[in-house]
Amino acid sequence: MTLRVDLNGDMGESYGRWTLGDDEALMPQLTSANIACGFHGGDPHVMRRTVALALAHGVAVGAHVGLPDLIGFGRRRLAVSPAELRDYVLYQAGAVKAFAEAAGARLEHVKPHGVLYAMAQEDGELARAIAAAVAELGGDVALLLAGRTVAAAATEAGVRFVPESYVDLDYTGEGKLVIERVKQLRDPKETAARAVRLVTEGKVRTLDGTDLDREASSICVHGDAPNAPAIAAAIRRALQAAGVELVPLAAL
Amino acid sequence: MTLRVDLNGDMGESYGRWTLGDDEALMPQLTSANIACGFHGGDPHVMRRTVALALAHGVAVGAHVGLPDLIGFGRRRLAVSPAELRDYVLYQAGAVKAFAEAAGARLEHVKPHGVLYAMAQEDGELARAIAAAVAELGGDVALLLAGRTVAAAATEAGVRFVPESYVDLDYTGEGKLVIERVKQLRDPKETAARAVRLVTEGKVRTLDGTDLDREASSICVHGDAPNAPAIAAAIRRALQAAGVELVPLAAL
Amino acid sequence: MTLRVDLNGDMGESYGRWTLGDDEALMPQLTSANIACGFHGGDPHVMRRTVALALAHGVAVGAHVGLPDLIGFGRRRLAVSPAELRDYVLYQAGAVKAFAEAAGARLEHVKPHGVLYAMAQEDGELARAIAAAVAELGGDVALLLAGRTVAAAATEAGVRFVPESYVDLDYTGEGKLVIERVKQLRDPKETAARAVRLVTEGKVRTLDGTDLDREASSICVHGDAPNAPAIAAAIRRALQAAGVELVPLAAL
Amino acid sequence: MTLRVDLNGDMGESYGRWTLGDDEALMPQLTSANIACGFHGGDPHVMRRTVALALAHGVAVGAHVGLPDLIGFGRRRLAVSPAELRDYVLYQAGAVKAFAEAAGARLEHVKPHGVLYAMAQEDGELARAIAAAVAELGGDVALLLAGRTVAAAATEAGVRFVPESYVDLDYTGEGKLVIERVKQLRDPKETAARAVRLVTEGKVRTLDGTDLDREASSICVHGDAPNAPAIAAAIRRALQAAGVELVPLAAL
Repeated sequence: MTLRVDLNGDMGESYGRWTLGDDEALMPQLTSANIACGFHGGDPHVMRRTVALALAHGVAVGAHVGLPDLIGFGRRRLAVSPAELRDYVLYQAGAVKAFAEAAGARLEHVKPHGVLYAMAQEDGELARAIAAAVAELGGDVALLLAGRTVAAAATEAGVRFVPESYVDLDYTGEGKLVIERVKQLRDPKETAARAVRLVTEGKVRTLDGTDLDREASSICVHGDAPNAPAIAAAIRRALQAAGVELVPLAAL
Repeated sequence: MTLRVDLNGDMGESYGRWTLGDDEALMPQLTSANIACGFHGGDPHVMRRTVALALAHGVAVGAHVGLPDLIGFGRRRLAVSPAELRDYVLYQAGAVKAFAEAAGARLEHVKPHGVLYAMAQEDGELARAIAAAVAELGGDVALLLAGRTVAAAATEAGVRFVPESYVDLDYTGEGKLVIERVKQLRDPKETAARAVRLVTEGKVRTLDGTDLDREASSICVHGDAPNAPAIAAAIRRALQAAGVELVPLAAL
Repeated sequence: MTLRVDLNGDMGESYGRWTLGDDEALMPQLTSANIACGFHGGDPHVMRRTVALALAHGVAVGAHVGLPDLIGFGRRRLAVSPAELRDYVLYQAGAVKAFAEAAGARLEHVKPHGVLYAMAQEDGELARAIAAAVAELGGDVALLLAGRTVAAAATEAGVRFVPESYVDLDYTGEGKLVIERVKQLRDPKETAARAVRLVTEGKVRTLDGTDLDREASSICVHGDAPNAPAIAAAIRRALQAAGVELVPLAAL
Repeated sequence: MTLRVDLNGDMGESYGRWTLGDDEALMPQLTSANIACGFHGGDPHVMRRTVALALAHGVAVGAHVGLPDLIGFGRRRLAVSPAELRDYVLYQAGAVKAFAEAAGARLEHVKPHGVLYAMAQEDGELARAIAAAVAELGGDVALLLAGRTVAAAATEAGVRFVPESYVDLDYTGEGKLVIERVKQLRDPKETAARAVRLVTEGKVRTLDGTDLDREASSICVHGDAPNAPAIAAAIRRALQAAGVELVPLAAL
């Protein structure tokens, strides 16, 4: 049986006059794009362009929903209530969905951005709020995240859950992802080796040097890392060399 | 043959801690609600509440799309390009559509808010940008506006155009709507009489005292007028007394 | 010796098209005004008007600095770093200072708004960041807050600290202020009695029914309570009847 | 007599996670820095850093005030009223002034950003609003702009006016500056030659090939041009080679 994995990346994080990431270079390496929706980054014009870029490369379109904190890029904890979060997710994902459908595609998944990712993993109420919003979108949109709390919330809401892992971020010995306010430079080769080990063995090395068991149907590459395209290309090549097939979420 | 008209109102213009308008009182008088989408007013929580309020009263849900000028409430001209405007409209209407569909309803129409209304009437390129975005929404969403420029743009884009008129705003002798930054108090009885004359005779008295020929399938009541519910109720009663049937846009 | 106390209130919390509070009615009751600076509420026009209103009533001008969360009105915790907070405070207070000086007055104090108030009390680093920004303003601007952590931070920064207490909010048995997202209606008479007891006996009754020792050189009245002017007037009358003199911060 | 000119540049246009321009490279070439204030670009942290960078290179600090249009980078006309504009300018300049004074410096000048620059030149009421705000700042802050309308407004308000010219933007045959939404690449050598001709002969070549008479006490270099530091360095070298002394505004 062939191993299959999705390679997702954060795209469309530019805003107005400001450019972030090299989407043109990174997009061709991916199978799924998490598109910023205007709360932490992205704006309506960037969103249209990014959806078009994704479709030009046969990449699936997802909504990268964030906290309403543009100045903090969605990377600072904000004490939103579950009801507030549900509405933020539906608003943002609804906007991306309209751009996807206008381009003849569909919205395939929703993924929380920045610190919201960790908040959903740590707080079942927030996880359920996100899952409820995804369910409200209809059309079998998947929730792309990680962890038991989120998996349970998705199941409860009748939402397809796709577990993902990071190979361009560190995990602590306790299995927590270390969120970086500004991405550091990482070695593409080493990162690619982490990806292959993750998919073929289900293991990731932590900062403590211990191994963490991780189930991953998808691997994330960050778009705002300085060498993101090189990292994604290395991961893609290494996975293919290891006999792993790269497919979008919907094909998993 | 029975005369029929839609009665639409601007709803959901509150924002965060700030309340604007008395939506609870106004909604039951309407057949269509233009719901603010977060650019000039409204926020995701207000949007969800307003969609629910509309549906509780059998009122059709529309997107009231505005310029990205929260501090100016979308009432100051902003030199957006047609491409920018198209994306703003699709973004905002897409978000409202998601709330409508989550509540089991559909998005029935799009209407520009504030100065964008006049900008669309005056500039064919902007009118075409708005119509193009409405077409991209799919699902036979109507464009609620007024004027030949907009009608032509809608036809070109294959979008259903519903002409509306105001009876709670003044028209100049040249037929231009006078936009008010803060709504003044108007007499409900007199405003209702204007509505009846508009629907039954197709005429509106201008500030010059002359008559303006107006085709109106829909009449707008502003939600932020101090006595908006009283005005809407008076219009509704007067129209019904004159034998006019009040129906939502989709039934026209 | 005459007891003296400052009566401060949150003013200028309107934003753009949205009005909040009845500043015209509340201002004449106060001796100090905490003026919103645009981050959680207030905008440049509201700021100018509010400074003018304060000066027309001989009320001292202060900056009511908040978190950058307009949609949440600065009432949701946001994990700002001390360095970020210092810059937010200096930016906002600098803007108010310019309006005060343009009107021929001076900036008398800085007070954190909403949840930032509690954050400063709980986190010495944040308290020091705020105090450092106040020190950078120069001109003997006072820091209006409460609690030992903030008092120590102010002393360290060489900033005058004015301890205040609330009589229109509840305290828990542990002495914590209960922040309300939307202010409830309170009885003016009872609130006024709390104020007199606070100033003359230094005690406040908690939700547990126990007494809390509070030092208060200033008492706060919230501007967004539905009956804020009535509450402030009742406090003012009761204090004067009890022989307490009402004076602005600078005169304490 | 030695010819003297100020070399000013737009600095601090980054925002949150987004970087714009290479301020580290451009700053040492300047004598005055126009620092963005958060409306069109810049944020409180960027402002503090940029003030510090300016002072480290002995560069004078000014406020680069813009329209409240972050997504449009202040480059789209917005129909603000004179009263609104006056408050926007005072708010923004007041904030920069606080950062300047906190760093032991003073605010030397105010300069409108983007399309506000042209709006001030074309509309006497807007020019007077800006000049009035600068006067309200006190402390002999200069207004850095160009054109007779602005010069007259400054004189009327008792504000020092410093006329500047651009050599990295084009002028039409009618003497109008052509504002670019995204800066194009220009030849440093040619741009430097324009600067020398401007200062020594008072002339600038227009797009028509005709000569425009320009009085310039200051020359502007745009910070968001792709090769801004190279352009500024070339201008500096060429001016010095031509015997022109580079001095900050206050020394003119």
